[in-house]
Amino acid sequence: MTATLRVGVAGLGTVGMGVLSLLDRNASVVEARAGRPVAVSAISARARGRDRGMSLTSYEWHDDPVALARDPDVDVVVEVIGGADGAARATVDAALDARKPVVTANKALLALHGSALAVRAEQAGVALAYEAAVAGGIPVIKALREGLAGNRIDRVAGILNGTCNHILTVMQTQGRAFADVLAEAQALGYAEADPSFDVDGIDAAHKLAILTALAFGRPVAFADIHVEGIRAITAEDIGFATTLGYRIKLLGLARSTEAGVSARVHPVMLPEDAELARVDGVHNAVVAQGDFVGRVMLQGRGAGAGPTASAVVADLIDIARGRHAPVWGAASGALSNAPSIPMEQHFGEYYLRLTVVDRPGVIADVTAILRDCGVSMASMIQRGRSDSAVPVVIVTHETSEAAMVVALARIATLDAVLQPPAMIRIEPA
Amino acid sequence: MTATLRVGVAGLGTVGMGVLSLLDRNASVVEARAGRPVAVSAISARARGRDRGMSLTSYEWHDDPVALARDPDVDVVVEVIGGADGAARATVDAALDARKPVVTANKALLALHGSALAVRAEQAGVALAYEAAVAGGIPVIKALREGLAGNRIDRVAGILNGTCNHILTVMQTQGRAFADVLAEAQALGYAEADPSFDVDGIDAAHKLAILTALAFGRPVAFADIHVEGIRAITAEDIGFATTLGYRIKLLGLARSTEAGVSARVHPVMLPEDAELARVDGVHNAVVAQGDFVGRVMLQGRGAGAGPTASAVVADLIDIARGRHAPVWGAASGALSNAPSIPMEQHFGEYYLRLTVVDRPGVIADVTAILRDCGVSMASMIQRGRSDSAVPVVIVTHETSEAAMVVALARIATLDAVLQPPAMIRIEPA
Repeated sequence: MTATLRVGVAGLGTVGMGVLSLLDRNASVVEARAGRPVAVSAISARARGRDRGMSLTSYEWHDDPVALARDPDVDVVVEVIGGADGAARATVDAALDARKPVVTANKALLALHGSALAVRAEQAGVALAYEAAVAGGIPVIKALREGLAGNRIDRVAGILNGTCNHILTVMQTQGRAFADVLAEAQALGYAEADPSFDVDGIDAAHKLAILTALAFGRPVAFADIHVEGIRAITAEDIGFATTLGYRIKLLGLARSTEAGVSARVHPVMLPEDAELARVDGVHNAVVAQGDFVGRVMLQGRGAGAGPTASAVVADLIDIARGRHAPVWGAASGALSNAPSIPMEQHFGEYYLRLTVVDRPGVIADVTAILRDCGVSMASMIQRGRSDSAVPVVIVTHETSEAAMVVALARIATLDAVLQPPAMIRIEPA
Repeated sequence: MTATLRVGVAGLGTVGMGVLSLLDRNASVVEARAGRPVAVSAISARARGRDRGMSLTSYEWHDDPVALARDPDVDVVVEVIGGADGAARATVDAALDARKPVVTANKALLALHGSALAVRAEQAGVALAYEAAVAGGIPVIKALREGLAGNRIDRVAGILNGTCNHILTVMQTQGRAFADVLAEAQALGYAEADPSFDVDGIDAAHKLAILTALAFGRPVAFADIHVEGIRAITAEDIGFATTLGYRIKLLGLARSTEAGVSARVHPVMLPEDAELARVDGVHNAVVAQGDFVGRVMLQGRGAGAGPTASAVVADLIDIARGRHAPVWGAASGALSNAPSIPMEQHFGEYYLRLTVVDRPGVIADVTAILRDCGVSMASMIQRGRSDSAVPVVIVTHETSEAAMVVALARIATLDAVLQPPAMIRIEPA
């Protein structure tokens, strides 16, 4: 096993260039840990001519990543093109067809096509590795797939999108509005020109789909995830959260019970002393709860060239050493068929913020609706009597999502309620 | 690969019984992840008759763990006897002689004999796995050895002893004295009757020796670690730390620079917002800093039957799957020969607490000594003028350990200084 592992890198964006840089700079460390040299032999990208700040002439160039995947001088294919279909999918398919292991950072590909790809990888008898797809350089995939493999995991929770966590952290610390902080993050390059993938929760949901499948040994089921983003969070909500002893975070949350598996991405209020409440800025963190190990948390930088390259190269070193794990921790035939639990069946506490006309009887109308829907109130904050529109904040006892949906719809129809009610779910620590 | 992996468990204390319990209760989960059944075939302990709360009649019994290691019906040996030599060492040697993989939770064995054992395991071509030896169920060994393997790690820091962290946490939250909290912890079973292994820092140093070897790819060097425990920490020190914005923790700290490797276990003052400052109670946590990944932190329960069994079984699943890694991350021949840096060469800030007679000229004498030793003061707290013995707290700018040692010895000789000066090193976040 002293022959060089020859790597083909498809995609030369931030991550691809990070992989080239790491394998160049840390060649001796990687060789010691891999037991043989690991070196890039071929590369592919859309725009050959673009200046990428590094000479690429020593690598075989392919205009077509599928040709790179088929190149006989490539032993393993790194797919860092991105996107669930198109060139990325074609490249991975071509590599698996050629019985070559694949390392990918592509969460959308795994979340949407992960079951079919796992079967193909198993048939080819090669690895399909994706540490870089979730939480950047934090080795959370390896932890769930191998490190905690003796446990029944019953809960996974994570801060999975650094852009959202950065925005919420700045809103929290500076008291600023979502749109304002987003615009600044875009100007600084922390957020994309089209931010919907991040701020609408889709990116976090892709990652949660992967974590859920791995943690519970179950086929990946992106479509069953309830997804909400952070656009509706206001500075006012963040202020009330602080008053109530909470922090607002966008979490991915998955639970496994006898009834099945629930998985959801939405903003939550977390007690301010909860582990995940303290994870700020662009950091990611994942907490897993196992029956023997208890709670384990992993935390670090969730994105960027360096952390993502670190994860890709960890997968390459596993491949160089011949360390192999099934794509979803167990063979496709050994995965569970636990059903998905729909969001209507969620139970929890809720924060509601209403903007109401300050006149007699409004609170009576609102609380009557909650009572009629079987929603029990835990506390209420009513402030400011000088304005015509005043905020009313209600925290409920534990209730069902189904009841809350009906109650919110009815409350929204009241004349004295001026805006659609804001609702944020409260999670225990 | 569908044959059962037959496990021999040597040692039936808390950890051994935890392994039996896990492999029994989670047999189906383990089989799915291991690709084949993993089952205990033979057991060994000193006292056969003792009631362990579980029927053991279905396992082959060996009075002698070495005989268990040689039993042809044992494929892999779990050594959870403990101790760096004696029965534990003999069992591991016998297993490696028989070319059987070994899983151990034995940090003393690895810290003291890890280099020789790695060579033996390599010659036998089998795994010597020890996830359970450091930080209980937190997969920190796998993270350093595989998950972060693409990085040059330049710093590892950790809360590695749950007993010390529990004692310091209770001292912090309840303002109580060390001896008092230790006695209570002993009564509750959180601390051993002979607590020196924990409170004198030896257990943490064993674990740090292992982490240092893995992180920096260097032969394990326990004897080169500077070790201090927590017996000298007073409630007064904890109070002053809080005043100064610090928390006192017992840390294991290792750094790799061009000059070599430094490794030390001692109490530190950490800024109260540092990640490790917030890890309380019996939790363990490890922070690793890599050149590409940045900082990664792993946190969880560091001891106990469940977490430790979780780690042992993770190693068994790796072995069942044929996933193999060199004992120290790289082959023995590929480890670095970076020198150890002695503690005298440490540079950092220091907290000093003196108990002095309240009379003119004392501070002048103390500060003259610091000046003569080249130690620059950053701040001083002087309180309470009613008593004859008053505390004086000094925080220094960055200085060398060598200078500080000389300064402390001279200060201790002053007539007006009533007790040996207390010194705690300050670490950046």
